[in-house]
Amino acid sequence: MNFDIIRTGRAVLHVTDIEKSKKFYDALGFIITETDDNQIFLRGLEEHNHHSLLLKQRETPALEVISYRVKSEEDLEQLATKLQKDGNEIKWLQEGEQKGLGRAFRYQDISGLPVEFYHHMDRVDRKLQQYDLYKGAKVQRIDHFNCMVSDVEKAHNYYINEFGFACSEYTTGEEDKIWASWLHRKPSVHDVAYMNGPGPRLHHIGFWLKDPMSLIDGCDVLASIGYAPNIERGPGRHGLSNAFFLYLRDPDGHRIELYNGDYFTGDPDFEPIRWELDDPLRQTFWGHEAPDCWFEEATEVLNVLTNEKVQTQAAKLKKRKPTFVI
Amino acid sequence: MNFDIIRTGRAVLHVTDIEKSKKFYDALGFIITETDDNQIFLRGLEEHNHHSLLLKQRETPALEVISYRVKSEEDLEQLATKLQKDGNEIKWLQEGEQKGLGRAFRYQDISGLPVEFYHHMDRVDRKLQQYDLYKGAKVQRIDHFNCMVSDVEKAHNYYINEFGFACSEYTTGEEDKIWASWLHRKPSVHDVAYMNGPGPRLHHIGFWLKDPMSLIDGCDVLASIGYAPNIERGPGRHGLSNAFFLYLRDPDGHRIELYNGDYFTGDPDFEPIRWELDDPLRQTFWGHEAPDCWFEEATEVLNVLTNEKVQTQAAKLKKRKPTFVI
Amino acid sequence: MNFDIIRTGRAVLHVTDIEKSKKFYDALGFIITETDDNQIFLRGLEEHNHHSLLLKQRETPALEVISYRVKSEEDLEQLATKLQKDGNEIKWLQEGEQKGLGRAFRYQDISGLPVEFYHHMDRVDRKLQQYDLYKGAKVQRIDHFNCMVSDVEKAHNYYINEFGFACSEYTTGEEDKIWASWLHRKPSVHDVAYMNGPGPRLHHIGFWLKDPMSLIDGCDVLASIGYAPNIERGPGRHGLSNAFFLYLRDPDGHRIELYNGDYFTGDPDFEPIRWELDDPLRQTFWGHEAPDCWFEEATEVLNVLTNEKVQTQAAKLKKRKPTFVI
Amino acid sequence: MNFDIIRTGRAVLHVTDIEKSKKFYDALGFIITETDDNQIFLRGLEEHNHHSLLLKQRETPALEVISYRVKSEEDLEQLATKLQKDGNEIKWLQEGEQKGLGRAFRYQDISGLPVEFYHHMDRVDRKLQQYDLYKGAKVQRIDHFNCMVSDVEKAHNYYINEFGFACSEYTTGEEDKIWASWLHRKPSVHDVAYMNGPGPRLHHIGFWLKDPMSLIDGCDVLASIGYAPNIERGPGRHGLSNAFFLYLRDPDGHRIELYNGDYFTGDPDFEPIRWELDDPLRQTFWGHEAPDCWFEEATEVLNVLTNEKVQTQAAKLKKRKPTFVI
Repeated sequence: MNFDIIRTGRAVLHVTDIEKSKKFYDALGFIITETDDNQIFLRGLEEHNHHSLLLKQRETPALEVISYRVKSEEDLEQLATKLQKDGNEIKWLQEGEQKGLGRAFRYQDISGLPVEFYHHMDRVDRKLQQYDLYKGAKVQRIDHFNCMVSDVEKAHNYYINEFGFACSEYTTGEEDKIWASWLHRKPSVHDVAYMNGPGPRLHHIGFWLKDPMSLIDGCDVLASIGYAPNIERGPGRHGLSNAFFLYLRDPDGHRIELYNGDYFTGDPDFEPIRWELDDPLRQTFWGHEAPDCWFEEATEVLNVLTNEKVQTQAAKLKKRKPTFVI
Repeated sequence: MNFDIIRTGRAVLHVTDIEKSKKFYDALGFIITETDDNQIFLRGLEEHNHHSLLLKQRETPALEVISYRVKSEEDLEQLATKLQKDGNEIKWLQEGEQKGLGRAFRYQDISGLPVEFYHHMDRVDRKLQQYDLYKGAKVQRIDHFNCMVSDVEKAHNYYINEFGFACSEYTTGEEDKIWASWLHRKPSVHDVAYMNGPGPRLHHIGFWLKDPMSLIDGCDVLASIGYAPNIERGPGRHGLSNAFFLYLRDPDGHRIELYNGDYFTGDPDFEPIRWELDDPLRQTFWGHEAPDCWFEEATEVLNVLTNEKVQTQAAKLKKRKPTFVI
Repeated sequence: MNFDIIRTGRAVLHVTDIEKSKKFYDALGFIITETDDNQIFLRGLEEHNHHSLLLKQRETPALEVISYRVKSEEDLEQLATKLQKDGNEIKWLQEGEQKGLGRAFRYQDISGLPVEFYHHMDRVDRKLQQYDLYKGAKVQRIDHFNCMVSDVEKAHNYYINEFGFACSEYTTGEEDKIWASWLHRKPSVHDVAYMNGPGPRLHHIGFWLKDPMSLIDGCDVLASIGYAPNIERGPGRHGLSNAFFLYLRDPDGHRIELYNGDYFTGDPDFEPIRWELDDPLRQTFWGHEAPDCWFEEATEVLNVLTNEKVQTQAAKLKKRKPTFVI
Repeated sequence: MNFDIIRTGRAVLHVTDIEKSKKFYDALGFIITETDDNQIFLRGLEEHNHHSLLLKQRETPALEVISYRVKSEEDLEQLATKLQKDGNEIKWLQEGEQKGLGRAFRYQDISGLPVEFYHHMDRVDRKLQQYDLYKGAKVQRIDHFNCMVSDVEKAHNYYINEFGFACSEYTTGEEDKIWASWLHRKPSVHDVAYMNGPGPRLHHIGFWLKDPMSLIDGCDVLASIGYAPNIERGPGRHGLSNAFFLYLRDPDGHRIELYNGDYFTGDPDFEPIRWELDDPLRQTFWGHEAPDCWFEEATEVLNVLTNEKVQTQAAKLKKRKPTFVI
């Protein structure tokens, strides 16, 4: 490959009430880089780039795009060329067309997800050592996307073979087919994960926290100011990924994961860890069942060319959630 | 009152497989003071008395007795006299009759619970600063009993008026009747709590941990060795009591709470905090629903004279669990 | 005794720049109950009384008084009577004379320290579950005073025999004399500690934190806003008391301890733990040497009648700090 | 470059009493992969390779070699060719010659340090989710080497230009010369750091912990079993790197850093952070002075060809430790 995708970069979400969203993400402990009447640019405490989460006020909640960073402008060019050669229609966005961002292009990926690539993002102050600004769950940085797609194995193979991702862990369902897959470019557990389900949909965006107590602090602060109903699942430990997790629903129902744990996956001899779908330790190492809504609800995604909602396809594997046998 | 009940002292539980129980409580991080073929004496890391939990091998799981410590032998005598004068039948156990324990007496309390009082317990080494022995959830000390009784208000009034307990927090149900009550002698949130339900039954025994991370470590260790199914509820934060909690079921289904949080309740002007039964923040500050089994299942208790199971009475207040409205 | 001293109540410190002090204590995570041109009333997050620390703007830094709470107005009266009968001159302050406080009296205690007793303090909102207000080290409540006195054994005996305190731990120096003593009324490690040194002086006021991470968060936040030079010692673990500690110097040099750990001391058979002065684990369980200033510097105290500084006496035991032999 | 150095791999230390060393590293929470009469192979809990620390019993304590892992056997070959072409004498070690390791070569690097490269190391079970094995400080994985060298700027330039390392943070001393430098291949703060001082010497080996509490637990456990004198510095927060750190001395005086914190450095536009040598927040964000021994003592290193001690050179920059001005 003549291009290098570095990492998960940013997501653009549509929200229906920008003031409500601002209050929620501010409480969570994001840094607000800037904001105008219908946009909020958010980043984590250690991030030195303009934003990793962009919220836009629109009539309907949706995912506009998930976005990966590439190593250089040349990498961006090479990747665009490859995708077009493979028959994909891409849409360029020029420098300055999106605040804080350099040139970028978008397309609908192998699963129908709206995906963007960019190299340049404006630099801003890193707040890592301004501990006096730490609050809520003290969100440190964006970590990964988790997407529900109708054919996980297809996405899994494509991202590995065409984009150079590596698999850290995966789940097998019926006939040993891949039911879910965790893929990374940076040497962590994932930059993106795919789960079997009606898709394409965005299941959640994961943000990394500095320690387990930040997650507990996050619960306490959110509950104190009326967001207890927004805590959907957790805190708990995933068997798969070993993450200490918390799932929240923002005011539009977009799901945010707060996340601490992770391990180094950058070794060439790292062997992907396989889990059975019905292994009770997989979903939650501590044995708790996830609520149904966690398996069923997800954010709808847009077509990058038409801005229309993408129709979801039925999941290829029948079982849409694990059977708990505890 | 001419007697001083100091604190929650110990509990005696019947278990059906002493080896299984030993493995479980050892994994949890208790110190085993001593053990023989059909008894295990357990204590927390900071406890300087012989045991705070005694497990006896029997054919059926049950609570034999919950036990409070009084300030002196004279206090014990005065309390016995008072109870007999009030028409209660008490049963004396002489020094040495119970390993590690001095004189004690037992009776069936106002709720029909088997209750014991003692002053003397043998002293043993405190392990507080032998951190190399810390493991599992690093249990520090016994904190409280939680009992399901058919008439909470009756128990609440009796323990306050006759035994000198104070109420830290309580829950009201229908017609403003007391649905649950937290009562203490030591200046913490509770030594005993009563909940409305078919009773008398023991709901759980609470043990205090030194910090929130010990609770998370406890989950990880228990799950690693196959006890994930024993984790019934949590970790979470109770609104009522502000406790960071975890509920476990031991191999016989006895419920153990691991607990960190608490606050000082020793002020004469401390006003009991009132919660509505259906306030979603009460049960779980973070808004999670407790599983049905947590409300329905509890340990049966024995008659101190006959060793027969005590028949449960229907709960006086109809509603047996909160309605969650989140 | 016909009076019951409940606990450490409050301290009144003189500071030279009220704005500087306000900024410092606010950063630490205290709740400011109220403030005027030359006074700040501070309390911890779980405190339901008006204040536990009062700062008054004066020309010279000093301790005006340390103050204990008694159980009732009658206890206050009995205690005053006893002290007068014993030949002490006391000074009454009527209800309302001090903001938030009921009747109180002051006198110079056995060590020459300015000591106050009160029963009533106005009630205010407890902020325990307003986690959105938590910041800095998230100070929970006042815990204890530590005083440097010229004759520790005299103070130790007096507080035990005349005031009903109990000793949890103590240090012996030359000829097995008591070099330092930790005494409590509430069943924690201490309400007051005495250390051998030129006195009477206030060594520090200890505040209790909810967990070890709050202490680390406190360090990070303080350092972020320029208070690194105010961190005098720690974080570390004391062998004596098992406290996880941090010592800070406020803008006037008054020493504040942030503190997590503690254990239950309310048992009648609790035996005081004895430490040798030169046991390296005593001062710091992890073996660090404390800086000289920690042993040498302390806050001067006032005479309650004249408001003049009390002259310090030389320490009775010669050795004024431990010899480290590690 | 036609080779890819992935990360810090392992270190080989000479120790004088293998039993003493075993006891120490076991207490710290390392996993012992295997051991024989005069060697111990140690790894962290998440490591899936045979070892990251090898201790060999010898008469004198020394560093035998620090070792980096490369991506493939071909990378190893290319790197060897390059170094030889540049005039370095290298020494090959064949597969199996070192237990657990594939082919490797060693040479004396630009600073005179004994450096090794390898690709293959045997795979072993990862213990990440066997939390029942966690103990002490629960060491997770090797993170970095810190070396004292006489010419930091030379090493800094060489590793960046010839080996493809990137600089995350650095310190400037007299005449704006680089006094210390933190360099990485994996996207963390460092794989290796260089400090100005008499060298070449190994200052410490850094191991990564999962959370701040593991570091505190480590202190408590070590102190409980007599290792308090081995705690040299910390816990504290470095300004530079933002690490929450603890420095230990093993029974031979080799220095081990336990470390939590870190941030993502994998972005192409990451700008190295510059610190002034005398900035008090640099060394210790919380303002503590490090003990002199931390600046002065370090492990001597061996010549890879002769096994003789390498003579140290005087430091090029005069100032050998910061001036604290707090």
